[in-house]
Amino acid sequence: MANKLKIIPLGGMGEIGKNMTVFEYGNDMIVVDCGISFPDDDMPGIDVVIPDMTYLRENRAKFKGFMITHGHEDHIGALPYALKEFDVPVYGTAFTIALIEHKLEEARVNNKKLTVVTPGETVELGCFKVEFIKTGHSIAGAVALAINTPIGTVIHTGDFKVDFTPIDGEPIDIIRFAHYGARGVLALMSDSTNIESPGHTQSEREIGKTFEYYFDVAEGRIIVASFASNVYRIQQVADVAINHGRVVCFQGRSMEQVVQIAMRLGYLKIPPESIVKVDQLKRYRDDQICVITTGSQGEPMSGLFRMATATHRLNIGKGDTVIISASAIPGNEVGVSRVINQLYQKGAQVIYNRMADVHVSGHACREELRLMMELTKPKFFIPVHGEYRHLMMHGKLAEEMGVPPENTFIADCGDVIELTQRGGKKAGTVTSGAVMVDGIGDIDDVVLKDRKTLSQDGLVVAVLTLDSETGRMLAAPEIVSRGFVYMRDSEELIADIKALLVKETRKFEGADRSDYASIKAGVKNSLKSFLKNRTKRTPMIMPIIIEI
Amino acid sequence: MANKLKIIPLGGMGEIGKNMTVFEYGNDMIVVDCGISFPDDDMPGIDVVIPDMTYLRENRAKFKGFMITHGHEDHIGALPYALKEFDVPVYGTAFTIALIEHKLEEARVNNKKLTVVTPGETVELGCFKVEFIKTGHSIAGAVALAINTPIGTVIHTGDFKVDFTPIDGEPIDIIRFAHYGARGVLALMSDSTNIESPGHTQSEREIGKTFEYYFDVAEGRIIVASFASNVYRIQQVADVAINHGRVVCFQGRSMEQVVQIAMRLGYLKIPPESIVKVDQLKRYRDDQICVITTGSQGEPMSGLFRMATATHRLNIGKGDTVIISASAIPGNEVGVSRVINQLYQKGAQVIYNRMADVHVSGHACREELRLMMELTKPKFFIPVHGEYRHLMMHGKLAEEMGVPPENTFIADCGDVIELTQRGGKKAGTVTSGAVMVDGIGDIDDVVLKDRKTLSQDGLVVAVLTLDSETGRMLAAPEIVSRGFVYMRDSEELIADIKALLVKETRKFEGADRSDYASIKAGVKNSLKSFLKNRTKRTPMIMPIIIEI
Repeated sequence: MANKLKIIPLGGMGEIGKNMTVFEYGNDMIVVDCGISFPDDDMPGIDVVIPDMTYLRENRAKFKGFMITHGHEDHIGALPYALKEFDVPVYGTAFTIALIEHKLEEARVNNKKLTVVTPGETVELGCFKVEFIKTGHSIAGAVALAINTPIGTVIHTGDFKVDFTPIDGEPIDIIRFAHYGARGVLALMSDSTNIESPGHTQSEREIGKTFEYYFDVAEGRIIVASFASNVYRIQQVADVAINHGRVVCFQGRSMEQVVQIAMRLGYLKIPPESIVKVDQLKRYRDDQICVITTGSQGEPMSGLFRMATATHRLNIGKGDTVIISASAIPGNEVGVSRVINQLYQKGAQVIYNRMADVHVSGHACREELRLMMELTKPKFFIPVHGEYRHLMMHGKLAEEMGVPPENTFIADCGDVIELTQRGGKKAGTVTSGAVMVDGIGDIDDVVLKDRKTLSQDGLVVAVLTLDSETGRMLAAPEIVSRGFVYMRDSEELIADIKALLVKETRKFEGADRSDYASIKAGVKNSLKSFLKNRTKRTPMIMPIIIEI
Repeated sequence: MANKLKIIPLGGMGEIGKNMTVFEYGNDMIVVDCGISFPDDDMPGIDVVIPDMTYLRENRAKFKGFMITHGHEDHIGALPYALKEFDVPVYGTAFTIALIEHKLEEARVNNKKLTVVTPGETVELGCFKVEFIKTGHSIAGAVALAINTPIGTVIHTGDFKVDFTPIDGEPIDIIRFAHYGARGVLALMSDSTNIESPGHTQSEREIGKTFEYYFDVAEGRIIVASFASNVYRIQQVADVAINHGRVVCFQGRSMEQVVQIAMRLGYLKIPPESIVKVDQLKRYRDDQICVITTGSQGEPMSGLFRMATATHRLNIGKGDTVIISASAIPGNEVGVSRVINQLYQKGAQVIYNRMADVHVSGHACREELRLMMELTKPKFFIPVHGEYRHLMMHGKLAEEMGVPPENTFIADCGDVIELTQRGGKKAGTVTSGAVMVDGIGDIDDVVLKDRKTLSQDGLVVAVLTLDSETGRMLAAPEIVSRGFVYMRDSEELIADIKALLVKETRKFEGADRSDYASIKAGVKNSLKSFLKNRTKRTPMIMPIIIEI
């Protein structure tokens, strides 16, 4: 029991999303990050996906608190759900905590235990001493964690890149990583997102040159779409805009809110007189205007989408230059492509990543990952934040760098990785998984399966009103259908269905009440094959029997 | 009326898919290509999307035949639907016609008017003399068309790339394009798919080197996934495999069928003794086996997908090398990523486009598009085969090459482009659009909208049995729901719904039969707000009234 450190990922392994990792030693347990995933195509109607937190519930007494590496949704999004259940403190840098605070307010969750930590500081929770180390990422306030345990130090990189010329002037603290490397690191857990990309991610500063170019040549309005939390990007765009004599107007709910938070905390430095509201824009010429908006992923309802489809008061058109300063997250490619086409159709010039350097990644490429490995020289290696192939490739990279394969753990969510000073092993699994949230509750697999079936060929409801004694039909069958055929054009089909039902029901006349199940099954089967034959479609069939 | 050539795209403009273009002069009309699109995420349950052919119906008497540029689905897929209605001849090269024949057989459509044309030959239909010109593409038998009309020649490139070292040894016939260029080309219609890519597509032959490398180092089985119709790719893989002492086994229904056709016609040359069936593979060592399969797009049910998920007798595992020799078609990225992860998880080595040169595009990049423009020196330019931004960018490229902007037509489906020897203009529009096919019929927008709604939060059916005279409730309300909440866990909610319905219905007691609409509306509204409040979900609500 003692002298053993358990590392248990509850999310973020074999996926890029819903990051959450448990660190447990003796009677102490801390959790790093608490994120959501967004539902994929297989999950119609689902709002968000959160990690299964059964293990936290089972170990409530040990649970000392959350350590948050940065404020992206896949690292903080599930906190409103978790903090309803667990009354524990949450530690993060100022920007991270401010974003969490805002999120909790919106979800009306009260948590007074949010604590701001400055990079370089150490938080002590039970036997864990956790040092926050400055890194770089596509959001302000990102840190790695040096988790000092009784048996050694685990470095968790969080999401990171190595940017020696970041916009905030404070590069990743490689000296601190080297400090731990020199002392000896028990295990490294490192971001695997960009393992497929060779070389070194470009510095955020590089793309400033592209912005300079387009602001030099643009004669009309400039609209830049980016992520609201990418404060560095927003700072660069705002700086270039103001240097070119333009005012800046923020659009999109999350953009306006996050900018306000970042300004308040000093992460974003824009002269207030250069920021205007949308209704003040009419005072300015087009070449004096720069709009910074949400919608870089082509999301319907986002600022950019509405501007492209004339449902926003800023109607984009001829003369406007739109810069989409982001790359499409896997799964969003078609949506992004659609919004680019709509903007072209309206006559705007559109600059996007395939055409020009208007985006750099926030995740380390292979040479940066090698640097992290070399700085920390870990005994054990656990690649994190990646789909299965990313984790595998990152494992191979560690092997090239001298980590013996048996010291690398490619983990699934729920795996228990048990480390001692002498060795490490996978020691069983705990409950884990994806909890799908729709509205106020989670969703059962059966319900989700029904939604998929309904979306394929719709449904047919057949109501049969039967005499409870004789089983005779008391009224004509009622047929209602949705998503199957257009009812108004299908009178003949409906009439044929009704005739079939009358015939089918008659077979059961005089039968017992207990035979309603047989009637339902009979109706379902004969109707199914009838419809398949007539329409080549297989709607869900729902017979309902009313007995009088 | 005379001296006017009408060019009317009915598909393939502002989209990559369902290509179809009408050429009309006087009393003669021909149609180039007849393709399908695949449904996007917005079209649940839809099998395929075909062009609206109303205009062909309205001009049935003029309609002389189809000219098909090549055998990809987005160029031939709608022929089974079209040829059921239009008894016209179809012209294409041998491979194209063989694929069409196969497709018509499967759809049980009888058409005896399929005619094979050899590149260099000219087909005369009414006033049109159409020369087939050899090009290169990711399928065998691709041609451009020189459509000679009484007022001049229109060059339609079809889908093309400029490969000077193609696998079949016969490069694109640039001499013939130059011939027309020297004589004077009225209009060029050119493939816009790859306008975003600078430079020149690599020759198909280049990736042979990558295959050589991986076949040199692989010690186990090699599985290559590609498109069945990419005969050149298959030829290269088979050649390398046989040179390395491996037999070739084809898997996946379309792969087996298309290979058979290509072998029969001589497009594919593989010694029969090197081809083995899957049940013969056990006679060979792993390093003597090469499997060529469908599934490069991660499609469920495809060969590769089933091999990756242990539902195929060829269960991929440790020691196997899988080469995905294709790039993901937009919209398929997540599916491809998923299958790569599954293969990694089973222990296979996976080589894909992001890691190595195992695929080249079949579409011309910017320098090739410039070459085509320079060879044909058209008076008018109509970019085709592209989303809106591609068409616009291709138009700009033409402008750089000296085509005045007013001579370039960026068209939508249904636009009528009218050319004379003197000038050209857009002259109105005709009926056009997307016909969504599900099973045997097309689908109404209302039905599609219902499917989407059903997939979001499911439905609740409420059956009220009322006395036809008094409006009194004769039986307890019946509640059935799917895709909303898990019924078994929701007894309390169901009971509350029933109570609400009883209360709601009582309000209407004694009212007229004509008031059933009011009851339905009342029930719908109160149930909707009740459920939204209780569950934060908004299922479709279907009240059904049975009167006795």
